[in-house]
Amino acid sequence: MEIKRYDCGVRFATAVEYNGMVYTSGLVTSDRTGDITAQTKDVLSKIDAALEKAGSDKDHVIMVNIWIADMKLFGEMNAVWDEWVSKENMPVRACVEAKLAGNGNLVEIAAIAVKK
Amino acid sequence: MEIKRYDCGVRFATAVEYNGMVYTSGLVTSDRTGDITAQTKDVLSKIDAALEKAGSDKDHVIMVNIWIADMKLFGEMNAVWDEWVSKENMPVRACVEAKLAGNGNLVEIAAIAVKK
Amino acid sequence: MEIKRYDCGVRFATAVEYNGMVYTSGLVTSDRTGDITAQTKDVLSKIDAALEKAGSDKDHVIMVNIWIADMKLFGEMNAVWDEWVSKENMPVRACVEAKLAGNGNLVEIAAIAVKK
Repeated sequence: MEIKRYDCGVRFATAVEYNGMVYTSGLVTSDRTGDITAQTKDVLSKIDAALEKAGSDKDHVIMVNIWIADMKLFGEMNAVWDEWVSKENMPVRACVEAKLAGNGNLVEIAAIAVKK
Repeated sequence: MEIKRYDCGVRFATAVEYNGMVYTSGLVTSDRTGDITAQTKDVLSKIDAALEKAGSDKDHVIMVNIWIADMKLFGEMNAVWDEWVSKENMPVRACVEAKLAGNGNLVEIAAIAVKK
Repeated sequence: MEIKRYDCGVRFATAVEYNGMVYTSGLVTSDRTGDITAQTKDVLSKIDAALEKAGSDKDHVIMVNIWIADMKLFGEMNAVWDEWVSKENMPVRACVEAKLAGNGNLVEIAAIAVKK
């Protein structure tokens, strides 16, 4: 079985595929001036794009890790999550507060999914 | 292969099963008034219950992530862990301090296991 | 399929192997007096050793989680990472700040890899 690596930057891949599974990096927004709502939407759209490129989608996500810069943002992040997540195909999830790399980043999300 | 999702709440599943593996969410106590000892016992019993429902158990756990609200609680958390973990079947583990969602939560634990 | 557990200490294994995959614990340095550069080198050499023992190597790493004690150390940690990571075989990665167990520990790293 081959390991496929997608969108490798200077130090890590955006996604890796192996044995019917897709793993994404902890992804952050492209626009750090946005608020938690805008950033969460942007990051989840990046998750969607990374999964699509590797042959998966949010209906096949099995695990998600979320780090937010301030737990006060939990409710607003969840509001965007609730719009995004497939109600019939919920993953397991963990979300904790952590200081993130990159000034202005408010949320970082990593996903593990199954290929379609 | 089918993805099975257990005990889905409003935004995530308690456990997901795929390809002979079981993944749990980051689980927290049902009684946030308890101390770290009580909370760790409660969370590990929830891990046990989630694994059992998906056809696994602590002897088949391969990876555990633990987040504690204050590193000063590390020793007391570990005392409960040491009672719980199968000495002949230890998983890999990572434990760091993080602010958790939900006032009063002192410990959150997520596990990955193999089905029996 | 058998679960193999490597270098089990008093409460967790250094690595676990199952179904062609290798999972490591969050590993820390053996010399907490070292700076972030020395600690990152030491931890990555421990990752190398753990993977080798289980029949893998850094060319087969698919996912890495890094926790650093202070985000100010991000650049120095990355300089060591950049020397270590296989440019043709980059894993996905997430790195956040977190208080670590053990006074003086500046970096903790966990990896998931595929067997050679």
